[in-house]
Amino acid sequence: MSARFITFEGGEGAGKSTMVARARGWLEAHGHEVVQSREPGGTPLAERIRAIVLDHDHESFDPVAELLLVFAARAQHLAELIRPSLAAGKTVLCDRFTDATWAYQGAGRDGPLELIGQLEQAVHGDLQPDLTILLDVPVETGMRRMAGRGEADRIEQESMAFFERVRRNYLERAAAAPERFAVVDAGAGLEAVWRSVEGVLERRLAT
Amino acid sequence: MSARFITFEGGEGAGKSTMVARARGWLEAHGHEVVQSREPGGTPLAERIRAIVLDHDHESFDPVAELLLVFAARAQHLAELIRPSLAAGKTVLCDRFTDATWAYQGAGRDGPLELIGQLEQAVHGDLQPDLTILLDVPVETGMRRMAGRGEADRIEQESMAFFERVRRNYLERAAAAPERFAVVDAGAGLEAVWRSVEGVLERRLAT
Repeated sequence: MSARFITFEGGEGAGKSTMVARARGWLEAHGHEVVQSREPGGTPLAERIRAIVLDHDHESFDPVAELLLVFAARAQHLAELIRPSLAAGKTVLCDRFTDATWAYQGAGRDGPLELIGQLEQAVHGDLQPDLTILLDVPVETGMRRMAGRGEADRIEQESMAFFERVRRNYLERAAAAPERFAVVDAGAGLEAVWRSVEGVLERRLAT
Repeated sequence: MSARFITFEGGEGAGKSTMVARARGWLEAHGHEVVQSREPGGTPLAERIRAIVLDHDHESFDPVAELLLVFAARAQHLAELIRPSLAAGKTVLCDRFTDATWAYQGAGRDGPLELIGQLEQAVHGDLQPDLTILLDVPVETGMRRMAGRGEADRIEQESMAFFERVRRNYLERAAAAPERFAVVDAGAGLEAVWRSVEGVLERRLAT
């Protein structure tokens, strides 16, 4: 099978980590050489930027500064890992990408949409994921799942209204680009969600 | 005297640090409450970003990633230090600002000028320095002065041609905005340079 750029998106408690791990196994079993990564992060330099973004202690974190850090990490991730891997025929499987920036920094925080568009264009105007699997879960369900996982990071401490905006934006983006997105109902049990994800992989990655 | 936003620019070995320190003394002696800062950096978060930018070890540092980090630090610096200080009636004296980005990341590295313009507009389209003192020195003179200061950081290890492009860009920017810039010949001895800087401060900051 040929190299693909596949991203997983979704709110808190949607089960992304589990589904990314299973998707990796499925892809490898189907002949893909898989590079698994995540955003923000994915390279040593980008992970240093991630640490700043997720730090608890920046109470007065400027929203534009945060946005620029996210795209700085992304530019490095693309240059150092994503583009070379795709060029080498590997499938890149990434936990979050620019859709998350639109959802969290854009819709969630009511951030500067024009700037996000300019940054997306400058950083990867030529490259979009081939497939984005959106794990959609009602905000309350996701929050219940998150409870008990221990201390949430800075971004997870936002309000319910914030996460409602994030979810709505993800769904709007999926509706606007159905050829790229597949929306999976992630409110069901783990095995049912995986069967849905597996079905998407089978349908969308048939060569 | 009213609050001003004053920046110092110039290539390597132009004597910026010394002149910033002396200018601070002069401003305080003339009734300014001075906040001295530097870029990239100026706040704890921005200094963490600075550390990434100046790190020796990133041989494959993506140029767009670097540019976005510089503006991320700047956005935080503006939000947390520069804007509040000016609003409180203090004079902000800053070692480098966006002119340095145009000169180094733009002209020096042949970087994405359109993106630099978009970022400048998004981050501080409403705020420019009141006075920018450009300490201009021939590249060879600057290099001679730097020699013996010990190991240069990553950016200082660039080629002569790079520094020629930086210098030319600074001079072009100064010529295009004479109401904001003052160009000081920094090739002379320290006391002569200071007399020139002092003369600029006297002429430009007369209220």
